[in-house]
Amino acid sequence: MNIDAAIAELDSFLGDRCSRSKSDLDQHGTSETHFAAFPPDAVVWPENTAEVSKILTICNRHECPVIPYGAGTSLEGHTSAINGGVSVNFGRMNKILRLDPGDVDVDVQPGLTREELNRELRATGLFFPVDPGANASIGGMASTRASGTTAVRYGNMRENVLGLEVVLADGRIIQTGSRARKSASGYDMTALFLGSEGTLGIITRLTLRLSGQPEVISAAFCGFDRMKDAVDAVIQTIQMGIPVARIEFVDTDTVRAINQYTGMDFAERTHLLLEFHGSEKAVAEDVRRFGEISDDFNGLDYMSTTKAEERTALWTMRHKAYYACLSLRPGATAVVTDICVPISKLPEAFEETRADIEAASIPGPILGHMGDGNFHAVLLIEPGNAAELAEAKNLAKRMSERALRLGGTITGEHGIGIGKLDLMDAEHGASWDVMGDIKRTLDPVGIMNPGKLIRGN
Amino acid sequence: MNIDAAIAELDSFLGDRCSRSKSDLDQHGTSETHFAAFPPDAVVWPENTAEVSKILTICNRHECPVIPYGAGTSLEGHTSAINGGVSVNFGRMNKILRLDPGDVDVDVQPGLTREELNRELRATGLFFPVDPGANASIGGMASTRASGTTAVRYGNMRENVLGLEVVLADGRIIQTGSRARKSASGYDMTALFLGSEGTLGIITRLTLRLSGQPEVISAAFCGFDRMKDAVDAVIQTIQMGIPVARIEFVDTDTVRAINQYTGMDFAERTHLLLEFHGSEKAVAEDVRRFGEISDDFNGLDYMSTTKAEERTALWTMRHKAYYACLSLRPGATAVVTDICVPISKLPEAFEETRADIEAASIPGPILGHMGDGNFHAVLLIEPGNAAELAEAKNLAKRMSERALRLGGTITGEHGIGIGKLDLMDAEHGASWDVMGDIKRTLDPVGIMNPGKLIRGN
Repeated sequence: MNIDAAIAELDSFLGDRCSRSKSDLDQHGTSETHFAAFPPDAVVWPENTAEVSKILTICNRHECPVIPYGAGTSLEGHTSAINGGVSVNFGRMNKILRLDPGDVDVDVQPGLTREELNRELRATGLFFPVDPGANASIGGMASTRASGTTAVRYGNMRENVLGLEVVLADGRIIQTGSRARKSASGYDMTALFLGSEGTLGIITRLTLRLSGQPEVISAAFCGFDRMKDAVDAVIQTIQMGIPVARIEFVDTDTVRAINQYTGMDFAERTHLLLEFHGSEKAVAEDVRRFGEISDDFNGLDYMSTTKAEERTALWTMRHKAYYACLSLRPGATAVVTDICVPISKLPEAFEETRADIEAASIPGPILGHMGDGNFHAVLLIEPGNAAELAEAKNLAKRMSERALRLGGTITGEHGIGIGKLDLMDAEHGASWDVMGDIKRTLDPVGIMNPGKLIRGN
Repeated sequence: MNIDAAIAELDSFLGDRCSRSKSDLDQHGTSETHFAAFPPDAVVWPENTAEVSKILTICNRHECPVIPYGAGTSLEGHTSAINGGVSVNFGRMNKILRLDPGDVDVDVQPGLTREELNRELRATGLFFPVDPGANASIGGMASTRASGTTAVRYGNMRENVLGLEVVLADGRIIQTGSRARKSASGYDMTALFLGSEGTLGIITRLTLRLSGQPEVISAAFCGFDRMKDAVDAVIQTIQMGIPVARIEFVDTDTVRAINQYTGMDFAERTHLLLEFHGSEKAVAEDVRRFGEISDDFNGLDYMSTTKAEERTALWTMRHKAYYACLSLRPGATAVVTDICVPISKLPEAFEETRADIEAASIPGPILGHMGDGNFHAVLLIEPGNAAELAEAKNLAKRMSERALRLGGTITGEHGIGIGKLDLMDAEHGASWDVMGDIKRTLDPVGIMNPGKLIRGN
């Protein structure tokens, strides 16, 4: 490994788009959550695929680690340069490359954020539905197989990325997928790179499937005195096949945090926040049918609205929930858990988790995308407090083990990074070895985002 | 390679579940379409995963080719034993392994057919939506990433398989995915095996996502004098986001074939066949909205029905279309094409294909899943007529090249097998090499379904 030699070459090739300034290194080494900082040795800003290919060719020759960097919103330390090396920032590769009238797909560069994309799409009658909350980059969302509030209706990145351009570790450029909505042509290489967290190659272009902006959107919410009733209402909704576009759960602690943080005044009880998309009649019918379910499970104050400003307020509030939870304990950082279980196992997963957190000494509001069986506890700890970190990690580990016992997964949408490596063996066993075999086949030198996802990587 | 030694071991291990009878070999070597027969040297019928593992361990040691065999309904010669070896027939691994009340997923063995599965599900209020027409095995559908008439609404196997148990070439048994609806946990190993056509391992168990049986189902159809109007009506439907459950296209030749074959009396013009799923009000609204589109594009005789027997008649008829087309030319066999293009490119892809076939000397009815951008020409040729086979293959090649030029794929749902190998380089380029690298990593001896999908496999 000769990182300095790699950086010297990158420096002469990229000029002021290669930085070793402390502020750049620090910014690229920090994480949204509790992880220690691991700054890279340099940051580069490529402007096109050919430059990315050249960067990788140089780094591969010098065995220099390469860490792709989008918007830095990932939660499992995906962008930490734990062995040093070069962060590749996609801030200058953030363009829409193709958007033609009549098409229901678009080609974008990885540094484009989802909010920028949807702003550009507004006039077309189309939108990109995947919404992880944070204004993540599309490349980052692809790399972690992101989902979020709308996955229950529109799917996650898996269902909404049709094709990719990828630069492999040795600089080769490949295309995966196509603009077709489906294909049976060979291995699903697109799916292989989605969620590979930069360990197999660097995504330099994405073809995204778009959806039509719904004729009518109705947002709704209702409260529950008993959390179990809210969970059961979600299960009933999914089993009946009501096509909810979002069905989000926030517990009492989360509601309290949101009220404090945003100045709203939701009743301090568990809430479901919903959205319905479709024709006027279909949406009205969905709102009515969910109202019946709410009644069946003792829902309170069921309200719905089709007014844009009220909807926006509701979802802005939901999207601020993470920061609101952090503010419950001033100065705190968080261990954010992310389990996903079969819908029918939600009550068990949820009640056990709730009891576990109540017995602990640290706060842990719970919220989630219950329609997918996916929920988070935001475990609030004091930065630098080793005992609290250990307690939070222990709670998180028990949640993950619970998810596996119930037939689920240790992460519904945040990914592995460095935060969940110690649980991979329990979830995947020999399949994790095969992931490692594939990793070493595509990246024999081992430069691609080392230390993430793969055993002993 | 020592096929005889492998079979001798299999014979002593499996007894009368290992056959070398000519009728068994012939049955497993033939294809639904125009391919020459390539019988295996033996056929085995395992009864559980451990036996599959032992079969592969034996075959791997003797470098004996292994060809998984489900219902034999694939169209690209996937089950041909082109280098001889052992066909593994899953007829005795056809059970439902788990189906619990309240769950919206099910565990099945690969030999179960989709019709058997849906018969078992009938009482549960759930169904498995992927419907390729033929009564294929679930394992075969997974191996070719099958889709069919309902993919426009419910997705294909990619969206409806949550997890797999797979036996690798060396006999190791791995699990992929879970029962959770989504996951960001490591590489998407489930997606890697879906569509891998038995070249990476053998699927021995599948966890399938189920959907709720719709409250109301309405089938509908309408005719068009101009094919272009029908195509434009499909595009408009998709762009408006009307949640059609099926939207199928049959051209005039196909309608004529169906009338002859089934005794129906559809007007001999292009038709769209549709289905709408949902609540009573939502379905009524969808039927009405499509009616407006039909009017806008000069649709004729738009009819809809919610009567089960009428719906069944319509779809039985559609599912017989392949055999109906064959009967247009008594004694014929077929080269079946399968391109899929971006929705906005359907008119171009379709018109050029139509003109190309009209200029040829062989008949080629066109039908397809237009809502996905996927359509087929059934090119009818005389068995053994080399000139006609060459002409059909040339038409098929031009269709595939057209699909690629328009941003699409050479196969929407039938897969590669031996039939489309010569087009893989044009579609995937260097990405095909990476598929080969992955293949050799998982199957270094090269026993898994040799000659299919991979370059020089």
